Amino acid sequence: MTGNKAVAYVGKGTVEVEEIDYPTFVLHDGPGVNKANVGREVHHGVILKNVATNICGSDQHMVRGRTTAPEGLVLGHEITGEVVEVGRDVEFVHEGDLVSVPFNIACGRCRNCKEGKTGICLNVNPDRPGSAYGYVDMGGWVGGQAEYVLVPYADWNVLKFPDRDQAMEKILDLAMLSDIFPTGFHGCVSAGVTVGSTVYIAGAGPVGLAAAASAQLLGAAVVIVGDLNADRLAQARSFGCETVDVSQGDPKDQIAEILHTPEVDCGVDAVGFEARGHGREAETEKPATVLNSLMDITRAGGALGIPGLYVTGDPGAADPAAREGSLSIRIGLGWAKSHEFTTGQCPVMRYHRKLMMAILHDRVQIAKAVNATPIPLTEAPRGYREFDSGAARKYVLDPHGSLART
Amino acid sequence: MTGNKAVAYVGKGTVEVEEIDYPTFVLHDGPGVNKANVGREVHHGVILKNVATNICGSDQHMVRGRTTAPEGLVLGHEITGEVVEVGRDVEFVHEGDLVSVPFNIACGRCRNCKEGKTGICLNVNPDRPGSAYGYVDMGGWVGGQAEYVLVPYADWNVLKFPDRDQAMEKILDLAMLSDIFPTGFHGCVSAGVTVGSTVYIAGAGPVGLAAAASAQLLGAAVVIVGDLNADRLAQARSFGCETVDVSQGDPKDQIAEILHTPEVDCGVDAVGFEARGHGREAETEKPATVLNSLMDITRAGGALGIPGLYVTGDPGAADPAAREGSLSIRIGLGWAKSHEFTTGQCPVMRYHRKLMMAILHDRVQIAKAVNATPIPLTEAPRGYREFDSGAARKYVLDPHGSLART
Amino acid sequence: MTGNKAVAYVGKGTVEVEEIDYPTFVLHDGPGVNKANVGREVHHGVILKNVATNICGSDQHMVRGRTTAPEGLVLGHEITGEVVEVGRDVEFVHEGDLVSVPFNIACGRCRNCKEGKTGICLNVNPDRPGSAYGYVDMGGWVGGQAEYVLVPYADWNVLKFPDRDQAMEKILDLAMLSDIFPTGFHGCVSAGVTVGSTVYIAGAGPVGLAAAASAQLLGAAVVIVGDLNADRLAQARSFGCETVDVSQGDPKDQIAEILHTPEVDCGVDAVGFEARGHGREAETEKPATVLNSLMDITRAGGALGIPGLYVTGDPGAADPAAREGSLSIRIGLGWAKSHEFTTGQCPVMRYHRKLMMAILHDRVQIAKAVNATPIPLTEAPRGYREFDSGAARKYVLDPHGSLART
Amino acid sequence: MTGNKAVAYVGKGTVEVEEIDYPTFVLHDGPGVNKANVGREVHHGVILKNVATNICGSDQHMVRGRTTAPEGLVLGHEITGEVVEVGRDVEFVHEGDLVSVPFNIACGRCRNCKEGKTGICLNVNPDRPGSAYGYVDMGGWVGGQAEYVLVPYADWNVLKFPDRDQAMEKILDLAMLSDIFPTGFHGCVSAGVTVGSTVYIAGAGPVGLAAAASAQLLGAAVVIVGDLNADRLAQARSFGCETVDVSQGDPKDQIAEILHTPEVDCGVDAVGFEARGHGREAETEKPATVLNSLMDITRAGGALGIPGLYVTGDPGAADPAAREGSLSIRIGLGWAKSHEFTTGQCPVMRYHRKLMMAILHDRVQIAKAVNATPIPLTEAPRGYREFDSGAARKYVLDPHGSLART
Repeated sequence: MTGNKAVAYVGKGTVEVEEIDYPTFVLHDGPGVNKANVGREVHHGVILKNVATNICGSDQHMVRGRTTAPEGLVLGHEITGEVVEVGRDVEFVHEGDLVSVPFNIACGRCRNCKEGKTGICLNVNPDRPGSAYGYVDMGGWVGGQAEYVLVPYADWNVLKFPDRDQAMEKILDLAMLSDIFPTGFHGCVSAGVTVGSTVYIAGAGPVGLAAAASAQLLGAAVVIVGDLNADRLAQARSFGCETVDVSQGDPKDQIAEILHTPEVDCGVDAVGFEARGHGREAETEKPATVLNSLMDITRAGGALGIPGLYVTGDPGAADPAAREGSLSIRIGLGWAKSHEFTTGQCPVMRYHRKLMMAILHDRVQIAKAVNATPIPLTEAPRGYREFDSGAARKYVLDPHGSLART
Repeated sequence: MTGNKAVAYVGKGTVEVEEIDYPTFVLHDGPGVNKANVGREVHHGVILKNVATNICGSDQHMVRGRTTAPEGLVLGHEITGEVVEVGRDVEFVHEGDLVSVPFNIACGRCRNCKEGKTGICLNVNPDRPGSAYGYVDMGGWVGGQAEYVLVPYADWNVLKFPDRDQAMEKILDLAMLSDIFPTGFHGCVSAGVTVGSTVYIAGAGPVGLAAAASAQLLGAAVVIVGDLNADRLAQARSFGCETVDVSQGDPKDQIAEILHTPEVDCGVDAVGFEARGHGREAETEKPATVLNSLMDITRAGGALGIPGLYVTGDPGAADPAAREGSLSIRIGLGWAKSHEFTTGQCPVMRYHRKLMMAILHDRVQIAKAVNATPIPLTEAPRGYREFDSGAARKYVLDPHGSLART
Repeated sequence: MTGNKAVAYVGKGTVEVEEIDYPTFVLHDGPGVNKANVGREVHHGVILKNVATNICGSDQHMVRGRTTAPEGLVLGHEITGEVVEVGRDVEFVHEGDLVSVPFNIACGRCRNCKEGKTGICLNVNPDRPGSAYGYVDMGGWVGGQAEYVLVPYADWNVLKFPDRDQAMEKILDLAMLSDIFPTGFHGCVSAGVTVGSTVYIAGAGPVGLAAAASAQLLGAAVVIVGDLNADRLAQARSFGCETVDVSQGDPKDQIAEILHTPEVDCGVDAVGFEARGHGREAETEKPATVLNSLMDITRAGGALGIPGLYVTGDPGAADPAAREGSLSIRIGLGWAKSHEFTTGQCPVMRYHRKLMMAILHDRVQIAKAVNATPIPLTEAPRGYREFDSGAARKYVLDPHGSLART
Repeated sequence: MTGNKAVAYVGKGTVEVEEIDYPTFVLHDGPGVNKANVGREVHHGVILKNVATNICGSDQHMVRGRTTAPEGLVLGHEITGEVVEVGRDVEFVHEGDLVSVPFNIACGRCRNCKEGKTGICLNVNPDRPGSAYGYVDMGGWVGGQAEYVLVPYADWNVLKFPDRDQAMEKILDLAMLSDIFPTGFHGCVSAGVTVGSTVYIAGAGPVGLAAAASAQLLGAAVVIVGDLNADRLAQARSFGCETVDVSQGDPKDQIAEILHTPEVDCGVDAVGFEARGHGREAETEKPATVLNSLMDITRAGGALGIPGLYVTGDPGAADPAAREGSLSIRIGLGWAKSHEFTTGQCPVMRYHRKLMMAILHDRVQIAKAVNATPIPLTEAPRGYREFDSGAARKYVLDPHGSLART
């Protein structure tokens, strides 16, 4: 019997590598598994031998104890791997296929899936629309920071790379297709980024950097990235972005210096609810800072793409309203400027195929942009720690040494 | 010399009919006129003899003293009239034309106008994008609740009715093209209303009723209107809407009774910042009630159209944040449901021609839906009063007795 | 063992009711079945007891001998029925569900299905993208003009009616959801029909009438239908359309009389390649007449929706070019007017849910518009004959007497 | 009095540099001026001192005698220049501004302009929608291959470069904004080109090369250009395109070699009605070759952008149908593949601002892509000759030596 090492959340601030069950075509009970999903048969699934499985900023919310994630929850929703077993009902995915898995689990049969809204599938999470692997309140599908993982509704969900050898040459880039590249791209698309746009992206973490690379790919004229973290800003500059150090004050002034006008066409929030203030308030959590700042910075008639996560409950928030996900937002300002706001999980399937094509044909170097850094699965705890301390890196776990070999 | 009677705001709670100057092709100084606009030449304008000029809910914000509108401000931005003088540079509008005037003043030459965003024209209001007749901080263009009014950039702005006699037969309907019909329609379009949609419209004032009629015209399957005011709800029912009495509690439960599900596809906010609470809080101003309720009521993947006005400054607000237009919004809830939000003034020009066609060919009875009620210009103070007290009517001022004659 | 009566094409001009095999979850060999599909397992399918299965104008192309359809081909792609057996892999469709089946068979797993292009699914027809039940060169899926039919990929394909009793009350309307109502609607949507449009629809057969009803539902100001057949034009007038008798000459002149301008905003081709000429050429087949006429009639900047079928091979055509699907088209005229053209099968799934909602909530009377006429399955030959002779009716076969009982 | 040298068509195959009148704010009679436009006052216009004015492939149709262009017609519709005189009614354009002029003349006041369809403006050409400088049957506005030119409706039409010195550094690139860059871009946009697309562009003339550069800017994965001319194909390869030599046979086979599949996502026709055959028919004019080939090459569900010109009358065509702009088109093939077709003049204003931003911020090298080659105005006859003989160059006339100085 094959073993299955995996990364689990074991308490505030700590993850550990544990041995868990090798997946079967049934969803068993376990930490975080929705009771209504226990025993669910998954003949439409495939089992993957993971080739790359990334640590995500949204995992950090759980590890920091900002959620109700139970101890023992197996983490990981950014999954790329090789198909090693095929469920009875799978027709178009085959053993040996190398595939990218969208972090959103979707059934491919409900109204939302049919409309392309795979981030809010109605059939996979008994509690509410939308699901993901290894995430609190997302249905209980076992996380993918593991050697092996079960992927349900495989004919619908997975994206097969057309050629295995070609794919392995760009595997670090392709590993970004499961979440952050589409997520950053979605932020840009929903902010209206197009050829010739000026864009401000709040946050130079991996999603912010992926958004910046996406904006370039979409033909943006000027891409400006703002953050507090000097290393991450340097990373943004490394591939041609302008940068704004928000610890120095309101981004508006620095934008005016760059563009000779204090406003951009498009604003992207790649920070979310754990935002801090600007300037002197840079040490304080100010959850609405980014949204309010983007309304100030974005021109009348512009749009805000908001891939950064805002939650319905935040036990660690500073005030009672924020604990329920309610923030003090300058909606009057946005209204005066006729802004449009797009929120929510990125529906990865809407974008992953086209972004794969851009990677395979050398139109974008996404791994380099986000500084993708492979480490062994067993070193996941170090990866979480360094990432949390602000390393300008995207950590990619390598459960079987496949990345080390390329 | 022709006289020019007009309706002016003269202090909190009061409007009066005054004699003002007959317009010329120059914008003169006066109450509320932006200093930078004083002396502006308007050879591209036409002078209208007004046939119908409506009282708008947004006028009430000023009259209630919720803005910094100066005393003496001539009111009125919903204008329909006959061209009686044509400026030197006007080429395609002619004396005798009967026209509808969008409440947004737009130049037809700036980047935003070229993109169809006439609600945020860059060239007509020296202070910020966007302008309107007779409105505080909107550039100082003289209001149209008057016998005569100057309409700038006439070749761009006005919509000519194809046949004068045909138009006079439906003039009460056509009078709704200057603001509330397009505004309600825009709310629906930006909420994603289409054939087969279920729609909840918060507010049964004229804009809410116009949104309801628009939703029907767009093919919505079920249109539900919510309000506190029994007369206005009865008016909504008069043309086939379902209704929800929010004084009885959270609209969610009542929606569930109507639809057998507690959510709608599309949510429209036709209330804005002077919202009150639901149920027991129905007497208290709760400016974020409608937005938060719509996020609760609108299905995951749905959209919110927000034509209801939110302001950047509200001297009459209950708390300091609201005084600056900042409200406590459950953004976490919206994010979890992947909602899209569209705010801002309706760009009337995007819609008025197609809505005119729908009126002229009997596809919609908008005057009936909003209970359009003509009164003489001289009775404007009564109109304001009755409207403010909750009459289920849209008051249409009739400066020259033209409506009385039809 | 249950029997299974079905309608088969048995030679030019003739259909017969035959006894065929009751369906199983395997696609067996038979007339018209693609060899590569023989033996295909269909555990993702359901078996329906048909409640309504309509005769379509595109069936007539085969029956008239204008295709290479083999003798014995079981016909029928407009299917509404009750689920009586559920395949092993089906998860969200249940025995007893009353459902509408899109005429396009789609897998719900390929690139095109994921993009909502279910009319050109890549996985169901081994010869080329796109498939349908009971149609020549469409993969060989057995036709549905039968008592029972197999529907593959049922979780993806079928639309369940929410309430069985409510559905049976409107079953003749709902029976139009499998093809002609979405097809007509798609023609209008792709022609740009929206609120206030003027629309010309070429053809007053069932698809043309469905397009006309769709245009009204979309808020069109004026809907004009053209045909040679007086009964069908009368049918169009019965629900508020204007009509043009193309046997009297070029539709342009008659349109000018109706609209006071010789052009419409939107043109829909609901005729296809078996078109005849206008005026004196009304007896002659002129396959490009409709396309060329629509370019003439549609205003500059307008669009043409082309749901009418054009084929890649037409053995019965008058000239060699037309035999290969090549027609003499006035593309220079279209180019000068910046026209857009949308061709192809309607992707039914994009529209059927919203049209179902419109039917269930009484927003449209589609069965009345197309004069839906139920007849017993056994009288199918009469239905084909009368329809071919120009009856202004949409024939709905009633295999189990379910329609007769309502 | 300032002189005004200009390029005029003087008979089949010949252009000459002549002295013409210096423009005034009235449109005078002259070769090709529409009678209804004679005497038209143009107080809304500006007079430009031309800095760059390009020879266009569509000029060649006239010079080759394929149109009814009268002798003496002043040519030129690709205009970039400095404002030297400002008409009485112009408000936002100023003397000294350096501007790009869209080749489509548009009023900024009609229904089509308001909808962004400036290629089919209703008010500038008395004969039909759409107009251009120096072009047969386009209203008679004097051509811009001259030292000075009148630009009507200047507030609406011109695009001002934000900084004069910055603009002069990239003036050869910016000179492409008046026509071919937006035209190529429009071809791509209407063909659905987006991030990750595979694209085939028929024609490697300046518009084809501009389309190729546009496809790259839009993020296309693979851009393939087809032509008969080896130099032009080499030019396409110089900036990273794949190429297909259609003199060697059907492009499908060569595409299959490049992509490992014989179809692309998007097809662009940058050839138009003077197309020749493929392979052995490469010497013969075959006006429908490109359209029919694109339908064959473009995948089901793809779209065709058709910026290449098709005319309503072609006196030089080989057969009577083509003389009236009617071509034998395989519409059955397009229909089977659900293709969409977009034809017509590019509405330059929709794109020129964003493409200017891309140029100014070094996101695209369009002058290099099309091999822009400045020559003195007086050498225009040589430019026309060399271009007609197939030079892989875009000739840019330099009336005042401004380009020579940079």
